[in-house]
Amino acid sequence: MSDFYFFDSISTELDLVEAALVKSVDSNVKIIDHAAAHLIKAGGKRIRPAFVLLAAKYFREHIEYIIPMAVALELIHVATLVHDDVIDNSDLRRGAPTVRSEWGNRVSIYTGNYIFAHALTLIEEYDQTEIVDILADTSMKICEGEINQMFSCYRTDLGLKNYLRRIERKTALLISVSCQLGAMVSDANSEQIKALKEYGYYLGMAFQITDDILDFIADEKTLGKPTGSDIRQGVITLPAIYALKYDPHRDELKRLLASPELCKTEAERIIDIIVNSAGIDYAYYATNHFANQAQKKLGLLPASPLRQTFAEFADFLSAREC
Amino acid sequence: MSDFYFFDSISTELDLVEAALVKSVDSNVKIIDHAAAHLIKAGGKRIRPAFVLLAAKYFREHIEYIIPMAVALELIHVATLVHDDVIDNSDLRRGAPTVRSEWGNRVSIYTGNYIFAHALTLIEEYDQTEIVDILADTSMKICEGEINQMFSCYRTDLGLKNYLRRIERKTALLISVSCQLGAMVSDANSEQIKALKEYGYYLGMAFQITDDILDFIADEKTLGKPTGSDIRQGVITLPAIYALKYDPHRDELKRLLASPELCKTEAERIIDIIVNSAGIDYAYYATNHFANQAQKKLGLLPASPLRQTFAEFADFLSAREC
Repeated sequence: MSDFYFFDSISTELDLVEAALVKSVDSNVKIIDHAAAHLIKAGGKRIRPAFVLLAAKYFREHIEYIIPMAVALELIHVATLVHDDVIDNSDLRRGAPTVRSEWGNRVSIYTGNYIFAHALTLIEEYDQTEIVDILADTSMKICEGEINQMFSCYRTDLGLKNYLRRIERKTALLISVSCQLGAMVSDANSEQIKALKEYGYYLGMAFQITDDILDFIADEKTLGKPTGSDIRQGVITLPAIYALKYDPHRDELKRLLASPELCKTEAERIIDIIVNSAGIDYAYYATNHFANQAQKKLGLLPASPLRQTFAEFADFLSAREC
Repeated sequence: MSDFYFFDSISTELDLVEAALVKSVDSNVKIIDHAAAHLIKAGGKRIRPAFVLLAAKYFREHIEYIIPMAVALELIHVATLVHDDVIDNSDLRRGAPTVRSEWGNRVSIYTGNYIFAHALTLIEEYDQTEIVDILADTSMKICEGEINQMFSCYRTDLGLKNYLRRIERKTALLISVSCQLGAMVSDANSEQIKALKEYGYYLGMAFQITDDILDFIADEKTLGKPTGSDIRQGVITLPAIYALKYDPHRDELKRLLASPELCKTEAERIIDIIVNSAGIDYAYYATNHFANQAQKKLGLLPASPLRQTFAEFADFLSAREC
């Protein structure tokens, strides 16, 4: 998922977002700047700002005014990544992190808070308190999702419903809000805003499931982290949930996934069972389902070359082998 | 500092704030509710909401409309306390915390984020994006202050300027903003808002210095924590800064305060040196200075019985033995 050709129509604006992101953290404390710059420069797919830009471009030709909003959405995403980076005591107890600065956790927390607060200052210029309310509400739900994910680790008894709620909060909501806010400040009417918000939601669901599939089947080079990172941390995603229910090796899988120790030491065996189960196909089926739902919402928008761009992203997710 | 009689004129509204605070956290995740409720119910002096209320009451008789703002300011304060609660790896390495739930740090982080985001939703009804900007800007400065405080621990070479900047960010800014916002949404003119904002700033400085003095001289029962908690954590406050510069035992003090080990094992000796130095008197002198600065700002406000209330708080801080 490295090459999003469908972002071509907003490449100029994405460059502006990138420049603004790099410049965005300029605190009075070197360590905040350093920590934030590191994370921001490490980059990412910039999906959230891209959707802010695309949603705005759907309704207006010149969209320079939307840059701060696009930057804000990416910063909120980065803030959650910084907080995710906090090491759990439990991990520390197991001796996992080998190198970590003395004050690592606190720096991560305050840097995350700083980045989030900075994102809020960027949206003042739109002069709509509703935007703050939407972002605050989304943040609260993301927090709920993070805690829910934490307590769902190693839980082999939780099923599809719990998983969908987790990925909604982890990914779909912020992508949904990106589409919604991009449209909201760009003369879209309430039906169009709603359609894009829902498109973003379904696309975000498809996107996260694809990501969860790739964690099993892509190699370390593509992922930028070891294959099966989720499993090693006890995060049970859709392919595993399916295999836990229907695979002939489900009893063995259950025993392995329930154990923090075995999730690490037997990760390859777990991955092997899941990759050879129908769980991957089922997850692709689910991706297709959500990508199709996203497509449907586009029918509610006026004709525009941009509709094709939105459709291509959904196509891209549903076109995976299955 | 347990009995703030000068809050009598707003006791009805403070009760409403208290009830709203208890009800304020109602997430879909039990552990967030539990963690937040515990912290909120543990209470505190409710200084920030009190100043929001008092500033509003200065300009309007009926101030029910200000309750959500007062709740929001206290929640922002509570959110910082939750994040302060995160255990450093360094502490853990030294084996300090004995009982801690498996996921302690992450729960603290997401609960803090949740509470902060919830505070933001409460201010939407005032429909002024400037309020969000002020709160976001304050949050960023608080983060800078927290990191600055962290990196100032055990640093015996940092002096008054560094200390004042730390307490400004730790305490003065949020009290200042409480006064400012209370006035801002209550028909105060820009000069009056500025006067109350500055009053809050100076009062906050005096308040934190008093708190720092008490950490040396009050007993465990009054403080609710062991005497010398700051010292034990390497937080060097005004009495220590003075003693490090002027006390005959300054070389010994410097050696002790520079060592994380000795700050714990020799805490009583350190406290003894500082309490018997002129550092406590000097800190009272500084408290008086800031309390007087706060008083001066009140002269810019119209005559009102509330002016007396604001003055009494400053008097209370400057009337300590010195």
